[in-house]
Amino acid sequence: MKALVLGSTGYTGMMLLRILLDHPDIDSVIPASRSAAGKPLQGVDPGIGGTAARRLETTDGRYIDPARVDPASADVIFAALPHKTAAEILGPLVGTVPVIDLSADFRFRDAAIYEQWYTNHPFPDLLAGAVYGLTEWHRDEVATGEIIACPGCYPTCVLLPLLPFAGRIGGTIISNALTGISGAGRKEKQDLLFNERSESLAPYSPGNTHRHVPEIHQALNAVGVDAEFLFTPHLVPVKQGMLVTTVAELKHSLTQTDAEKIVRNAYRDSPFVGLSTRELPDTRDVRNTNRCDISVRVQGNRLLLFSVIDNLYKGASGQAVQNMNVRFGLPETAGLRMHGEF
Amino acid sequence: MKALVLGSTGYTGMMLLRILLDHPDIDSVIPASRSAAGKPLQGVDPGIGGTAARRLETTDGRYIDPARVDPASADVIFAALPHKTAAEILGPLVGTVPVIDLSADFRFRDAAIYEQWYTNHPFPDLLAGAVYGLTEWHRDEVATGEIIACPGCYPTCVLLPLLPFAGRIGGTIISNALTGISGAGRKEKQDLLFNERSESLAPYSPGNTHRHVPEIHQALNAVGVDAEFLFTPHLVPVKQGMLVTTVAELKHSLTQTDAEKIVRNAYRDSPFVGLSTRELPDTRDVRNTNRCDISVRVQGNRLLLFSVIDNLYKGASGQAVQNMNVRFGLPETAGLRMHGEF
Amino acid sequence: MKALVLGSTGYTGMMLLRILLDHPDIDSVIPASRSAAGKPLQGVDPGIGGTAARRLETTDGRYIDPARVDPASADVIFAALPHKTAAEILGPLVGTVPVIDLSADFRFRDAAIYEQWYTNHPFPDLLAGAVYGLTEWHRDEVATGEIIACPGCYPTCVLLPLLPFAGRIGGTIISNALTGISGAGRKEKQDLLFNERSESLAPYSPGNTHRHVPEIHQALNAVGVDAEFLFTPHLVPVKQGMLVTTVAELKHSLTQTDAEKIVRNAYRDSPFVGLSTRELPDTRDVRNTNRCDISVRVQGNRLLLFSVIDNLYKGASGQAVQNMNVRFGLPETAGLRMHGEF
Amino acid sequence: MKALVLGSTGYTGMMLLRILLDHPDIDSVIPASRSAAGKPLQGVDPGIGGTAARRLETTDGRYIDPARVDPASADVIFAALPHKTAAEILGPLVGTVPVIDLSADFRFRDAAIYEQWYTNHPFPDLLAGAVYGLTEWHRDEVATGEIIACPGCYPTCVLLPLLPFAGRIGGTIISNALTGISGAGRKEKQDLLFNERSESLAPYSPGNTHRHVPEIHQALNAVGVDAEFLFTPHLVPVKQGMLVTTVAELKHSLTQTDAEKIVRNAYRDSPFVGLSTRELPDTRDVRNTNRCDISVRVQGNRLLLFSVIDNLYKGASGQAVQNMNVRFGLPETAGLRMHGEF
Repeated sequence: MKALVLGSTGYTGMMLLRILLDHPDIDSVIPASRSAAGKPLQGVDPGIGGTAARRLETTDGRYIDPARVDPASADVIFAALPHKTAAEILGPLVGTVPVIDLSADFRFRDAAIYEQWYTNHPFPDLLAGAVYGLTEWHRDEVATGEIIACPGCYPTCVLLPLLPFAGRIGGTIISNALTGISGAGRKEKQDLLFNERSESLAPYSPGNTHRHVPEIHQALNAVGVDAEFLFTPHLVPVKQGMLVTTVAELKHSLTQTDAEKIVRNAYRDSPFVGLSTRELPDTRDVRNTNRCDISVRVQGNRLLLFSVIDNLYKGASGQAVQNMNVRFGLPETAGLRMHGEF
Repeated sequence: MKALVLGSTGYTGMMLLRILLDHPDIDSVIPASRSAAGKPLQGVDPGIGGTAARRLETTDGRYIDPARVDPASADVIFAALPHKTAAEILGPLVGTVPVIDLSADFRFRDAAIYEQWYTNHPFPDLLAGAVYGLTEWHRDEVATGEIIACPGCYPTCVLLPLLPFAGRIGGTIISNALTGISGAGRKEKQDLLFNERSESLAPYSPGNTHRHVPEIHQALNAVGVDAEFLFTPHLVPVKQGMLVTTVAELKHSLTQTDAEKIVRNAYRDSPFVGLSTRELPDTRDVRNTNRCDISVRVQGNRLLLFSVIDNLYKGASGQAVQNMNVRFGLPETAGLRMHGEF
Repeated sequence: MKALVLGSTGYTGMMLLRILLDHPDIDSVIPASRSAAGKPLQGVDPGIGGTAARRLETTDGRYIDPARVDPASADVIFAALPHKTAAEILGPLVGTVPVIDLSADFRFRDAAIYEQWYTNHPFPDLLAGAVYGLTEWHRDEVATGEIIACPGCYPTCVLLPLLPFAGRIGGTIISNALTGISGAGRKEKQDLLFNERSESLAPYSPGNTHRHVPEIHQALNAVGVDAEFLFTPHLVPVKQGMLVTTVAELKHSLTQTDAEKIVRNAYRDSPFVGLSTRELPDTRDVRNTNRCDISVRVQGNRLLLFSVIDNLYKGASGQAVQNMNVRFGLPETAGLRMHGEF
Repeated sequence: MKALVLGSTGYTGMMLLRILLDHPDIDSVIPASRSAAGKPLQGVDPGIGGTAARRLETTDGRYIDPARVDPASADVIFAALPHKTAAEILGPLVGTVPVIDLSADFRFRDAAIYEQWYTNHPFPDLLAGAVYGLTEWHRDEVATGEIIACPGCYPTCVLLPLLPFAGRIGGTIISNALTGISGAGRKEKQDLLFNERSESLAPYSPGNTHRHVPEIHQALNAVGVDAEFLFTPHLVPVKQGMLVTTVAELKHSLTQTDAEKIVRNAYRDSPFVGLSTRELPDTRDVRNTNRCDISVRVQGNRLLLFSVIDNLYKGASGQAVQNMNVRFGLPETAGLRMHGEF
């Protein structure tokens, strides 16, 4: 298979290249980047090893200008582009080659919500046909999708522990999230300097003002959860890692054993998601993997959920490749890492 | 003034020494430690600067065995000891010299609660007379106290933003806390190694199982807050820093402006506590200071509170010295740092 | 192939398990550990993913007591044990199954040197037949070795840039090394706590007192380098990473271009070692890979060499598997990572 | 005393403000900044505590445009400005108010060297009269200086351990330096992002290409050291901290005891500089202090020197205030920190 990566120099693009270059079913990768066009891949991204060259479908292992690529020559297209840019470029391609988008552009069914939180949408008619690529919950649609919208990192980490309990919770759901700094992207901002983030713990976008909130609402509504959802993210000094702690109200009593059984059953056939083998999960276990480790605690009529992912891997590029695997009938785990750090 | 420090080689003891050795009203410090007795202070704690010697009331700047110190020779005694040990040593001294305790031993009014969460108490009769040293809320009692129990780090960071709203909240209060690794003490445990905590985000003691929960309950009950309190702490890779994010339910509607005014008024005469000059607080602003920076957000009928402290400074040794200042009629800010990092 | 790992719960053992469980030519792994015998692998090492179970040759995915393993049932034995223990266990096995040792026990040709720096050697007669597994320089011996001694992390990082210049340098060679904290192992020591290493830069074992120095001497003598060697290691707050900066004296003048050519030629057929695509190398490029990235600068009659590895990967477990690959005629890169971080 | 700080929003300016606002002999501070003029100090630099206001000589605690300040109203002027800008602004002021400059503009006696490494100098005639403010070695000149040039951070850390041995060393001196990221300033560069520096060890400016090298040469020449000097700096993931490891050749043999005595004698009357109480120094001991901790090792005819400072404190703003103390006859330690971290 041949994979075209649009936007290869941001963190999610760089992660995509790493995964695809080692993927057993990918013969060739086309690294497209407007800003780095013509520059050698390993000059711009020295973490890429020397053996990559033989899999790169470009002259001398250089990035290529997306304008000079024939998208139809690829078997699959990944877009790791800013929102709106993604839709503008992908829109005309839909239907020719399966497209896997990491931006927000095709996550919403309702263009009005997208436009309220982001900007006007260049191809609103495409939204109805797009698939929400939270793989574990949408495998069938992903398997036939023409445009697969990968969820945001926060929605992935919030929803995976929550969805198995969809029918059992109500009232208020409060999620507190911690994210590694790579979640903020590769922008050259003072606030993202090493010196400013070292020894720093800080909330941001509180009170449901984060753009991932409407995405979570849409997913909860889709499964009939009738609850208020409150979300606060925090920036903490790790590079890759996300932890979500959720407190939900149980409609009916539930034992600890049953709660664990519910998670176990929900993900029985999901190789990447399941109960942590720790008492409570730890992000270092899943760093650089496609896993989501979960713990659950029943405390009276409260359900406490803890979930960890790597925000760049399962929260972005890893899940994108997982969707590719499902879309093309490959083993779901192909090319995706399982073993985290110690 | 002469200060005796019992337990000088844990993190809170080491921080106490730093503060006291620079304090304008302390002429002499007696560093007592059973494990380090006879060893030179600067050998065991090389961060202490050479000029310390002239303020150290011990032979050749060495730690002294607490058994060889006459407590009555000191004007004030600080105890940075494990719980129970603190009570055993301090109990017989109460009434002779004012005692400022950093352990849990004198925080509870009700011995039964202490014994449920910790162990049996050697001097339960002393509990009624002890002062809860959350300075900003108990200045008058601190000013005359014979035994002042410094609050835990989590209670300090949870209560300072919450108490001003005591009469206005009910229902459920949910606090999520992040703490730097120094909060776990200086124990030689595998789980506290650099390698195990680097790139690690992890919850612990969930579902109100942390020992600081009953302390927070006691403080909330004391001001008539009738609400369920849910608390989950998390360990994150900073050395010194604590962030608490609280969601509470408002009994009556409140404007954003009024909410800020309530915080501002509550701490009008408190030099260390107040609204952050950021939109939302950041622990690096208060690192190595006695400050607690707060932000508040009203979102419908919810009150969101954000507070940051240095867990070792305002959360332990700094507040202990603040209590000493109040107890001895010194300026409340004497010897305590105001300016954090950038 | 079936691989037995002796000592599976230290950092190098944990890294070995990760690599072997994903290796395309390993069908089954036997994780042996005295201390963890009987405990579930994923309980002790939660970073290991759930899919590992199918490759683990033990009951229910548990560690097995080494005393209960028949070494002859394995095709290859890896030892990640403390020195002396390694020799005691491996000695009797030599000749039955190829052994790859990560300790110092078989690195020296001369038992006297081993005994001067370590302890008495239980099988000194085996030293002459052991192979020094710095793969790139000893492929032929590794290919037929019965006992392969993997080099220390420092020798690996010092020697790879230096050996290509063996005939051209003399006088004094000064190497300064930086290592991540995992280089100090998983011991529960106060000095390795997160709080003690955070914001800490510190030299240790200066003046050629580090045990890796005689190993480097032996390797330099073997290729006829007649130079004084001075080595100082430093501990710095990263988890995995090693950087060596070497200044050597050139016997004859050399151009920058020729110096680079020498490195390029030396490693033309070595997939893991070569010139960095950066101006100067960076450890994050090689984190979690088997690479060694090198830069060279000629400055007058001085040769400056810069080299980076992951101390646990190329510096230990990765190189061990590389040696296995060579020993068993597998592709040298099989199962070993190429792409580092960004 | 009234202090004017020109350039208050870079790291050295922010550190200067912290020190001066707590200095017992400073009554008022004027924070001048072109970019932040009119903005509230605590909005731009939230680490500054609320009590700062009473010492700030500006309307409402705001930064003031330097163009609107009368320099003659200050008793001392600190400049934390980019090079050339510093000289352009300070040049016309020399002779009116004592000036303490943190840039490179007045460090060189020979304008030609400055111009070779930096740019053309607007006031070359002033160079001869400027004082090199390595306080411990130039107290008398500092005491009467009209323009005091604070040394670079690397020269400070290299020279303090080396100068006591000036007459005893020759041949080649090789210094390897490690610096925290704050040494690179507060520029919004991709290479300084948290994600790019985390788990990264990297050399830069090798082979005597760093601008601090000619400054070190000048200082060594001034005391008659006739040796080749080779310097390589490295960037490592701490915020504040610098470690220099130097290997020098001894002209005559020296015992370990005598070497230590030489350091001790050289700094007998210097409160900030001296032998580490550790076997080898550690940057965390001196973080946020004005100390330089030194260790020395004699190994045959080699002298090994190890020194640590906080690059922003003793390496910049702290030494600047130390110079002010000496210049104005204040206690040398006034307002400067002695106790580092643990």
